[in-house]
Amino acid sequence: MGKDAVRYFDQSPGAPTQPGRFASIDSLEPLLELAPGITSRPLLGTNLLGSFVRYEPGAVAPLHSHVEEQLFVVIEGEIELELSGERRVMKSGDAAMIPAWVPHSARSIARRAYQLDVFSPPRQAMLDLMARHAPMA
Amino acid sequence: MGKDAVRYFDQSPGAPTQPGRFASIDSLEPLLELAPGITSRPLLGTNLLGSFVRYEPGAVAPLHSHVEEQLFVVIEGEIELELSGERRVMKSGDAAMIPAWVPHSARSIARRAYQLDVFSPPRQAMLDLMARHAPMA
Repeated sequence: MGKDAVRYFDQSPGAPTQPGRFASIDSLEPLLELAPGITSRPLLGTNLLGSFVRYEPGAVAPLHSHVEEQLFVVIEGEIELELSGERRVMKSGDAAMIPAWVPHSARSIARRAYQLDVFSPPRQAMLDLMARHAPMA
Repeated sequence: MGKDAVRYFDQSPGAPTQPGRFASIDSLEPLLELAPGITSRPLLGTNLLGSFVRYEPGAVAPLHSHVEEQLFVVIEGEIELELSGERRVMKSGDAAMIPAWVPHSARSIARRAYQLDVFSPPRQAMLDLMARHAPMA
C-alpha cells in the first residue's frame, strides 16, 4: 500500500457526537411529492441532505435554482437535465455538479428513472416539506 | 400540482458565479488509489465532494474516521460496511449517513462493487491526494 492510501485511512482523533445510521433507500420516510410523477425519499445529515428521486415516465421538474449546492447522479433510466442552458440526456454513469443559483430542470423520458441528489447545505425547501410531513413520519 | 411542489421548484433570486458541470463518472480525473483494489474518481464542488469508488473482490478500506460528514450509497455489488461497531452487508438500495468522527470500514466480498461517497465539507485527505495528482490531470 502506498503512502497515499495509508494516509487516506488514518484514524482521526475526534470523538463522534452521534452514531452512524444505516438506511434502506426505499423505506426512508417521509415520501415527498415534488411534482406530478416525481417523488423523493430524503436522508438528512448535518451538512448533507440526500434525496433519492423517482420519476414516472414523462415527469418534469421545472426550471429552478437555489442557493444550496447540488450533486446530481443518475442511478437508473434516462433523465434529460438542463443545466446552465445546456440539455443532455443522462443515464447511469452520468452526474452533474450544480453550483449555487445555477438554473436547472430535469425530465424523464419514456421510462421510469431514478436519481440521487445530494445538497449541501441541506436544501431548505426540502426541509420545509419534511417538516410538514413530520407528524406522519 | 400541490402547493408543496410549486414551492419546491420556485425560482430563487440569486445569480450563479460559476456554471454547472456535466460529468461522465468513468472519465473523471484523477483516478486515485485509496487502498489495494480500491480506486476513486472524485467530483469536486464547493461544499460537496463526490467520490465514485470501485472495489475489486475482497478489497478492504480499513477502519478510519474523519471530521467530514459522509453519505455512503451502494450502486452495484455488495459491500460490508462496519459503522458505529455494527456490520451489515449492503447492496444497491442501501445507504448510510456517517457523521463526523464516526469510525467506519468497508470491504467488498466475492465480486467487484461500486459505491458513491459524498463528503461535506470536501474531505481534506482526498483534496490532498487530488493535489498530488494535479500535474497529471
